[in-house]
Amino acid sequence: MIHRIKGGVTAPAGFLSSGVSCGIKKRGKDLALIFSERVATAAGTLTTNALKAPCVLWTQEVLKQGVAQAILANSGNANCCTGRRGTEDTKRMAQWTAQRLKVQPSTILVASTGVIGRFLPMDRARRGIAHTVQTLSKTGSLCAAEAIMTTDTRPKEIAVRFTSKGHPVTLGGIAKGSGMVCPHMATMLCFLTTDAQVDRITLRNALQTIVADTFNLITIDGEMSTNDMVLILANGASGASPIRQANPSYRDFLQALRMVCRYLAHEIVRDGEGVTRLMTVRVSQAASSKDARQVASQIANSLLVKTMVAGRDPNWGRVAAAVGASGVKVNPAHLTIRLGNILVFRHGEPTRPGHERLLAQVDQPEVQIGVELGAGSAGSQVLSGDLTEGYIRINAKYTT
Amino acid sequence: MIHRIKGGVTAPAGFLSSGVSCGIKKRGKDLALIFSERVATAAGTLTTNALKAPCVLWTQEVLKQGVAQAILANSGNANCCTGRRGTEDTKRMAQWTAQRLKVQPSTILVASTGVIGRFLPMDRARRGIAHTVQTLSKTGSLCAAEAIMTTDTRPKEIAVRFTSKGHPVTLGGIAKGSGMVCPHMATMLCFLTTDAQVDRITLRNALQTIVADTFNLITIDGEMSTNDMVLILANGASGASPIRQANPSYRDFLQALRMVCRYLAHEIVRDGEGVTRLMTVRVSQAASSKDARQVASQIANSLLVKTMVAGRDPNWGRVAAAVGASGVKVNPAHLTIRLGNILVFRHGEPTRPGHERLLAQVDQPEVQIGVELGAGSAGSQVLSGDLTEGYIRINAKYTT
Repeated sequence: MIHRIKGGVTAPAGFLSSGVSCGIKKRGKDLALIFSERVATAAGTLTTNALKAPCVLWTQEVLKQGVAQAILANSGNANCCTGRRGTEDTKRMAQWTAQRLKVQPSTILVASTGVIGRFLPMDRARRGIAHTVQTLSKTGSLCAAEAIMTTDTRPKEIAVRFTSKGHPVTLGGIAKGSGMVCPHMATMLCFLTTDAQVDRITLRNALQTIVADTFNLITIDGEMSTNDMVLILANGASGASPIRQANPSYRDFLQALRMVCRYLAHEIVRDGEGVTRLMTVRVSQAASSKDARQVASQIANSLLVKTMVAGRDPNWGRVAAAVGASGVKVNPAHLTIRLGNILVFRHGEPTRPGHERLLAQVDQPEVQIGVELGAGSAGSQVLSGDLTEGYIRINAKYTT
Repeated sequence: MIHRIKGGVTAPAGFLSSGVSCGIKKRGKDLALIFSERVATAAGTLTTNALKAPCVLWTQEVLKQGVAQAILANSGNANCCTGRRGTEDTKRMAQWTAQRLKVQPSTILVASTGVIGRFLPMDRARRGIAHTVQTLSKTGSLCAAEAIMTTDTRPKEIAVRFTSKGHPVTLGGIAKGSGMVCPHMATMLCFLTTDAQVDRITLRNALQTIVADTFNLITIDGEMSTNDMVLILANGASGASPIRQANPSYRDFLQALRMVCRYLAHEIVRDGEGVTRLMTVRVSQAASSKDARQVASQIANSLLVKTMVAGRDPNWGRVAAAVGASGVKVNPAHLTIRLGNILVFRHGEPTRPGHERLLAQVDQPEVQIGVELGAGSAGSQVLSGDLTEGYIRINAKYTT
């Protein structure tokens, strides 16, 4: 039994957190710290963008050793495309944090999010780091969740608990998303903590399995960030016996991780820039998982499908056009398309169910689009949002 | 010397045209006819969408024989995903037109554009076809250009003339675009006429060369239509000697064709849904043309770059993120990015030219984005438009 409990990254035993405002952003909290009182095993999935920010490269190195003790994250500045100085700045962020925490710099995971191509204001960051360490607390998760927000309208956190041989094991997480979100290796910022005892190989496998299934299946605008990461720290403070892939407890752990990641992934889309309604695209009967994902992604990222959902317009021909444009071999005679639970196209023919019935399918807070390719048995599902004037308003004036 | 003259598809000798309103659309002209008084050689490039409309399949067959005498095109209904009845309807459109024109149905090219998944109102189409034939005239090009419009705000036509051994040779064209426009085999509807005498192989080669260079390098929303086509009819009525690839006149013909296609391609982007400003993305120093095009296309279709142009915001980090997300191998240390004529990123470092100077680069009717990959000598260029609330407004209520 896995149940949701209050809180976020500080719900598991042995984790403290804080979030402060240090002036990297014009207003609001912009620096978050998550600290494990003991050394934790660490795993992560990082952006596959070719222009990785220095913090991604730094964090990649830390993850190689598979142990870490803290995550420092700033919003308002991605510290990307900032050259040698950017690399130096990330290193100093880790060093200053390590000094204050009295740990090794090589145990500090660093994340940044925000505008690309600007230098970090390091004097402010230094004071901010001191402040985050001073304010670390058992109730700091919400502050940390707020401090990683960019155009997000609300903080995102969750914690769940299950029992492993009588010991309660807790898993918590915070995330930010909003724009530049698309299914790729990693997607946005998400920090997870657990007091389970998990070795680094098991932790990495579990994270990769669940990320592929949750964060990699959401999209807001088809954009891939230079700074995305999902990180997890497991400190073993629950006292429960170690979780290994062979044990039954692994299944519980995986399920708890999926619950946390799925919740945060949905929250990211729900709070996507300008998003008013969600759309779930399910593709089945594909010749391969790759085909299924490619078709689902083409539909979920189609501006015409997204504006159709925004306008509550059952114009399913746009879904058909996106299927055909996906590059996947499609036989129209074997293709089936559904809006909600209504069949609209099958055996090469429109079913013409009537406008009123179709209207009811798109006039939903979460619109369901189903596509069967009739070519095999593979499937994929992508969660996306509609595209509204809100997205344009936000992004036409993000830096200025 | 090639110079522009007045008119469109009826500027070349031996072509008549018309455009009427027959009730396929709620209002406005919706049926166009272009007629060559003598049999013409014909070539075309068609959409590569897997869900091709019946008119695309029909036209594909006509083009195989390489001769045609007329183009019939309707707007307001794509007649796509309409099954056996849709196929029958396209055939009847060709038959009725052929009967009225007293030619073979196999010489009628058919095009449709508009909503997908609805049946054509064939009684109206039949009356409309009679009307288009009755009203064919030497001044009908503008009416035809109007009759193929969907969300276009203005008709698009052009004609140019050059001299081949003392004979004036004329080339004319009309086009429609607006949404669902993206660089792929073909793009939108464009109909070209010429009184040059060109055999079908030469005509096909010329068209493919120029389309790759013009229509395939524009994008509005990254969407590929099910109904796109570019068609050309060459009827030889100029009396000039035949144009062959070995002759010097071929160069003139190619140049005239490029002038016409480039003008219409630019007009399509300029009149794209919600477009207020253009952006030209030039990628050079790529390892291959494919890489260059992939990077250019990723930038030109990036919602964040498009909204940056809409907002006159010199936030070039979004260009960097798009380069990195393109899937092309990029070494940041060899990458150069320019906004207008200002260098913003080189050797892995931001150049920080100052906000005011950058602002002047994006506050232009046509914003220039330059990327050098430092990996080879291949290049590509894509013309795109900004993404504004206008696009959302139009597409959130297109069918209803």
